[in-house]
Amino acid sequence: MEKWKLISSKYIHKAPWATLRKDTVELPSGLIKEDYYVLEYPDWVNVVALTQKGEFIMIRQYRHGAQEIMLELPAGVIDPGETPKEAVARELLEETGYSAGSLEPLCQLYPNPASSGNISHSFLAKDCFKTSIQSLDSTEDIEVELLSKQEILELIARNKIPQALHVGPLFYAFKTLEG
Amino acid sequence: MEKWKLISSKYIHKAPWATLRKDTVELPSGLIKEDYYVLEYPDWVNVVALTQKGEFIMIRQYRHGAQEIMLELPAGVIDPGETPKEAVARELLEETGYSAGSLEPLCQLYPNPASSGNISHSFLAKDCFKTSIQSLDSTEDIEVELLSKQEILELIARNKIPQALHVGPLFYAFKTLEG
Repeated sequence: MEKWKLISSKYIHKAPWATLRKDTVELPSGLIKEDYYVLEYPDWVNVVALTQKGEFIMIRQYRHGAQEIMLELPAGVIDPGETPKEAVARELLEETGYSAGSLEPLCQLYPNPASSGNISHSFLAKDCFKTSIQSLDSTEDIEVELLSKQEILELIARNKIPQALHVGPLFYAFKTLEG
Repeated sequence: MEKWKLISSKYIHKAPWATLRKDTVELPSGLIKEDYYVLEYPDWVNVVALTQKGEFIMIRQYRHGAQEIMLELPAGVIDPGETPKEAVARELLEETGYSAGSLEPLCQLYPNPASSGNISHSFLAKDCFKTSIQSLDSTEDIEVELLSKQEILELIARNKIPQALHVGPLFYAFKTLEG
């Protein structure tokens, strides 16, 4: 199996949160496809974060794509110059006020490799402790919730943590925590 | 916590694979945000499919967003008028040539509820049997691979099934299969 050959690229729209590119590509069969759309995003991070008591630090916020209020992992975008680990420590602190005692990589997942090249880097944070208040952007309204492992397992079983980028890392975290 | 109020919407780009909308929204704080971008997609499906011998029916194909060849679940888009279950049976047959003995829902996951409202519907197909050859679009080049449960577990542990929309349903499937 071979990769496709990129012939040319043209930007349809460029904005901080929506950069849309149209690629002309040549397939291994020789077929030319003139309109393969790619969305360019920076890499993202999220974190399965546990307090010193073993509670999961989750957040609740409104998500306008789905038009729903959702329970999710602390998460965000890697800023220019940051490593994924630096970005996730910053996002955890900004969104929840917690700092991590330890922070280790869990997995790296593509949100959608058909249309984007970016990766979401997931971490496991243990022994988190409250060090500050939240530090939110003007458009952010985030509630922090501490949940037990049993509560998280029940929410997953009931499909109430319905984000692909968040439920995968939670399963990875359970595997890691079970040793 | 309240949802945002939609003030107006404007389409930036409309194409079968890339419809980009710019919303003006009012936040509960009263703040007006004039450029919240939303990508509109149809709902998707994918399937954790097992043969009568208990092998996992996986596919390998090139993904141009990531520019990588990847191992993944059979998956696709729900066509107009189809139920998720009809779509997943069709995609399984087209991409692999297998029909399912039984087909039950596993989970529903948002690919990215921040920027899109669409859902990926995941199913568990058991007792699958080969009924035809593949039926692929001109741009599709898909290799079918049958893998054991142990091989899938090792690939997940090594982060070699790196798609958020596929690894979550695999974890759900293991939970279901373990009873």
